[in-house]
Amino acid sequence: MHRYRTQTCADLRASDVGQTVRLSGWVHRVRDHGGILFVDLRDHYGITQCLVDPDSPAFGDVEKLRAEWCIRIDGVVKARDSALVNPKIPTGEVEVFIREVEVLGPAGELPLQVFGDQEYPEETRLRYRFLDLRREVMQRKMTLRSDVVRFLRERMWGQGFREYQTPIITASSPEGARDFLVPSRLHPGRFYALPQAPQQFKQLLMVSGFDRYFQIAPCFRDEDPRADRSPTDFYQLDLEMSFVTQEDVFATVQPVIRGVFEEFGGGRTVDSEWPLISYRDAALKYGTDKPDLRNPIEMQVVSEHFRGSGFAVFARLLEQEGTEVRAIPAPKGGSRKFCDRMNAWAQKEGLPGMGYIFWREAEDGSGMEAAGPLAKNIGPERTEAIRSQLGLGLGDAAFFLGGKPDAFEKIAGRARTVIGEELGLTDKDRFAFCWIVDFPMFEKGDDGRIDFSHNPFSMPQGGLEALEGDPLGVVAYQYDLACNGYELISGGIRNHTPEIMFRAFEIAGYPPEEVEKRFGGMVNAFRHGAPPHGGCAAGIDRIVMLLADEQNIREVILFPMNQRAEDLLMGAPSEPLAAQLRELGLRVVREA
Amino acid sequence: MHRYRTQTCADLRASDVGQTVRLSGWVHRVRDHGGILFVDLRDHYGITQCLVDPDSPAFGDVEKLRAEWCIRIDGVVKARDSALVNPKIPTGEVEVFIREVEVLGPAGELPLQVFGDQEYPEETRLRYRFLDLRREVMQRKMTLRSDVVRFLRERMWGQGFREYQTPIITASSPEGARDFLVPSRLHPGRFYALPQAPQQFKQLLMVSGFDRYFQIAPCFRDEDPRADRSPTDFYQLDLEMSFVTQEDVFATVQPVIRGVFEEFGGGRTVDSEWPLISYRDAALKYGTDKPDLRNPIEMQVVSEHFRGSGFAVFARLLEQEGTEVRAIPAPKGGSRKFCDRMNAWAQKEGLPGMGYIFWREAEDGSGMEAAGPLAKNIGPERTEAIRSQLGLGLGDAAFFLGGKPDAFEKIAGRARTVIGEELGLTDKDRFAFCWIVDFPMFEKGDDGRIDFSHNPFSMPQGGLEALEGDPLGVVAYQYDLACNGYELISGGIRNHTPEIMFRAFEIAGYPPEEVEKRFGGMVNAFRHGAPPHGGCAAGIDRIVMLLADEQNIREVILFPMNQRAEDLLMGAPSEPLAAQLRELGLRVVREA
Repeated sequence: MHRYRTQTCADLRASDVGQTVRLSGWVHRVRDHGGILFVDLRDHYGITQCLVDPDSPAFGDVEKLRAEWCIRIDGVVKARDSALVNPKIPTGEVEVFIREVEVLGPAGELPLQVFGDQEYPEETRLRYRFLDLRREVMQRKMTLRSDVVRFLRERMWGQGFREYQTPIITASSPEGARDFLVPSRLHPGRFYALPQAPQQFKQLLMVSGFDRYFQIAPCFRDEDPRADRSPTDFYQLDLEMSFVTQEDVFATVQPVIRGVFEEFGGGRTVDSEWPLISYRDAALKYGTDKPDLRNPIEMQVVSEHFRGSGFAVFARLLEQEGTEVRAIPAPKGGSRKFCDRMNAWAQKEGLPGMGYIFWREAEDGSGMEAAGPLAKNIGPERTEAIRSQLGLGLGDAAFFLGGKPDAFEKIAGRARTVIGEELGLTDKDRFAFCWIVDFPMFEKGDDGRIDFSHNPFSMPQGGLEALEGDPLGVVAYQYDLACNGYELISGGIRNHTPEIMFRAFEIAGYPPEEVEKRFGGMVNAFRHGAPPHGGCAAGIDRIVMLLADEQNIREVILFPMNQRAEDLLMGAPSEPLAAQLRELGLRVVREA
Repeated sequence: MHRYRTQTCADLRASDVGQTVRLSGWVHRVRDHGGILFVDLRDHYGITQCLVDPDSPAFGDVEKLRAEWCIRIDGVVKARDSALVNPKIPTGEVEVFIREVEVLGPAGELPLQVFGDQEYPEETRLRYRFLDLRREVMQRKMTLRSDVVRFLRERMWGQGFREYQTPIITASSPEGARDFLVPSRLHPGRFYALPQAPQQFKQLLMVSGFDRYFQIAPCFRDEDPRADRSPTDFYQLDLEMSFVTQEDVFATVQPVIRGVFEEFGGGRTVDSEWPLISYRDAALKYGTDKPDLRNPIEMQVVSEHFRGSGFAVFARLLEQEGTEVRAIPAPKGGSRKFCDRMNAWAQKEGLPGMGYIFWREAEDGSGMEAAGPLAKNIGPERTEAIRSQLGLGLGDAAFFLGGKPDAFEKIAGRARTVIGEELGLTDKDRFAFCWIVDFPMFEKGDDGRIDFSHNPFSMPQGGLEALEGDPLGVVAYQYDLACNGYELISGGIRNHTPEIMFRAFEIAGYPPEEVEKRFGGMVNAFRHGAPPHGGCAAGIDRIVMLLADEQNIREVILFPMNQRAEDLLMGAPSEPLAAQLRELGLRVVREA
């Protein structure tokens, strides 16, 4: 007989009745039923009910057991009375009569119960993560994560990709966040950096002729912690391909991502059509570059209906250059109560309010009438034109926001989300995807200076020629995949031409010396026969969060840092030894 | 037609003759045959011969092409004359008549040729790694590595393991080397560490109930570079299992490792029998804890034959306590010439010499006689007893070393290796494995202090009781897998009992406070129902080195550091910005 177990706690069936077995696991709970002690024995795979009666020589040992003790039992499998069969667990037809117990690992007082659904503060859960992780829901989320990563690997292999590991202790590879630095002992005063992403290395792999690369890649960004962001390391499905267009990347990624949601989405609908939406259209229709398409609402420009109208606020506004009025249609939102609630929401968000029109049954029985202060101000003709443009009818409403798009787009997007949720228009049991394309290459900062708006390594559409015109009009071969309002993937067709690269960086204010200094390795590679290439990176943590329906990234990571970037279980970060600092040629300086 | 290619450079066959195709890749070389230009076009997958004659409108463009330019060509597939078919490449039956060429990425002067077998200094290869990696041999080694890692994952999944990712920015997890430190920005003056191995986390996973864990895990050790050691990050197949004995770990790992050598060993023999050899026996028989069993020589203790003998050097030596004389049998080594050569080798290694006996045909035709100075000194009876014990005969030899085993075991092991190689006894086309078991738990340092000899987390055989006796007599459930003289795997059954752990650390001179401080998280977990568990870690780089028959670890890593732990391509490590140091609360102090 094996030293610890002949079966797992999920294995025994009616067909095993009569057998002598050995099981190991944790005491899930002990119950006393009229003198008979029931022990639910739990391991990673399941639960088996074990019991002992007072006549058994093992009774005394079982009596001493407490929750979460790790034990081994020997016993005989018996059939449960048909009335006592538990159809909810695979071992529910049997129970094991305990003959012998061995305590493998006792437990002291439990700061956190594994049995039951009691909630605990996050700090307790992280400090005693080894108990927290024993809970069924946590076991499920962590195995989900592991299974998702496995699935992604298998699908990528299936598409002819190989996984290659790129260096972790390396040079800075900026992706817009802070680097984590690693002091060099052999070169005191000099530092390595942990990669924010394997961006440069995967591009070097393409120049090295590897054609199709992927990696479940650890990435490191020294960012301030957030609910949906790990403060230290996180994982991406990172991929890159040579001799491809944007469409090739989409065609490669779509079946992988769709597959993972179909496989692990728990039966929720997974859209098979993934529309391509330009960055500009996304901003207009959804007020965000990561729209939630489960919400059917699309905003529209309705400036013309307000220009010179009796609604002075918008009419005056529209006299300024670059302003617009946009409508958020709200099907089935046609009640004053709802419209007022949304108006109040807007005021809470810091707006003076949100104008609206809604269409109701006229009290005089004459049919549909438009109501709300705006309708009165602009008159029936303009109101009707708006209704007609938006395709609304009886029982519907529309909300209006105006100004410079940059200033109100985000809040309009949030209003769209709230309206969709409040009206039950947003289908919660669905994963809706879209590719956002044609990102602007450059943007103007608050200080009026031009900088890259996203990835500096993307190829501008139109190449060098496009860079001769207005930088703010240049769009890049750069794309995101949005799902249910989250950005899942970001990528681009890369700029593999040193000439175009230097010009793009020049526009963003980086002189050639600076480009050479920061990206010299890659630029030099591009001078030696670089293939056109492109790819993307998908956030693993984000995918698992969506699948597990969690808002907090720490729910899908085994041993996460807390919100102050501390590991409470292992005690990190900690004070270094003086000898370590000396070896590294460093001194800690406290602020005065 | 696709923007870049309708096929790869490995795809075209005789059945494609007549088709118009588009290919992209690198100019492997250009040859001029009587005015016709031949371009060998190369991509990741293969090579296709393309050509253009002077009448073609594309001739002028092709004429400008140089080696390693990245190009696209359009052309028509034609069959080669049967005399010109190249059976060595899959596309050898066809060639493509170029109609149009597009330069996708030109190349300047090449510091390193991709075509041909020219050798370059390592510094050049690392600085221009993107060219070096285009060479066929490098492509092959890197895809081998990728395929090995994939195979390992698939086999582990097949055995019911899941892969879990453990933190990378974390607390120190000492494995006997220096930590890489990462300064914390949110907690200036405090540091994270990169894990030397996921040892503590995988043990925590077992305490968390995950039962079977593996990970292709990045490990970080700040060690001085060596040919077979990466100075920064390297990868292990790391695994851990609950409720197992040592034999369970062996039974799990053996098919995985055997499988990888069978699959990727290029037809070399892979031993199916993996003997278990105790650490003590390995030292005696092979002079090392990583014996090369391809060499059939086993050393033996022959002290008794020399005690009180006429060979004064050994006779006097054996009067001292703890001394021994061991024999290295050398089948077919029975010539004075060979014995003298080995004696000279020993002198070069710093020994006064290595005594020997060899057995030859007596000149007087009376049969076999023993020759060599030792045989004369100890006389025929003892000489014959030695021969009989070692099972040697005519044409064989034996070498002898004596002293305290600790002092001569290593050199004896090296002598065994050299003898095996010189005599051609070591089968080069074979992978021979053995498990080394029963490692001593403790050892005495040069300063006379007791310390852990290997992993402090291993369970001593005999548990707490064993720790009450002589520490140097305690052996642990700790094991290595050796293959062809290299250590491939190291592992153990872990000590999951705080009580035994504190006692073991106490023996090694660590007071309880120190254990709590350094391993508090894990010890605390062990107080809350810890399962018995064990596992091991296999060096990926080492496995790939053996499969690729390479001695230098940098040959199996995409972007390795050089021997001074510098990345010449990316320029790491580098000077930090003053602002970065300020944020981290650090100052660089130069030695006076």
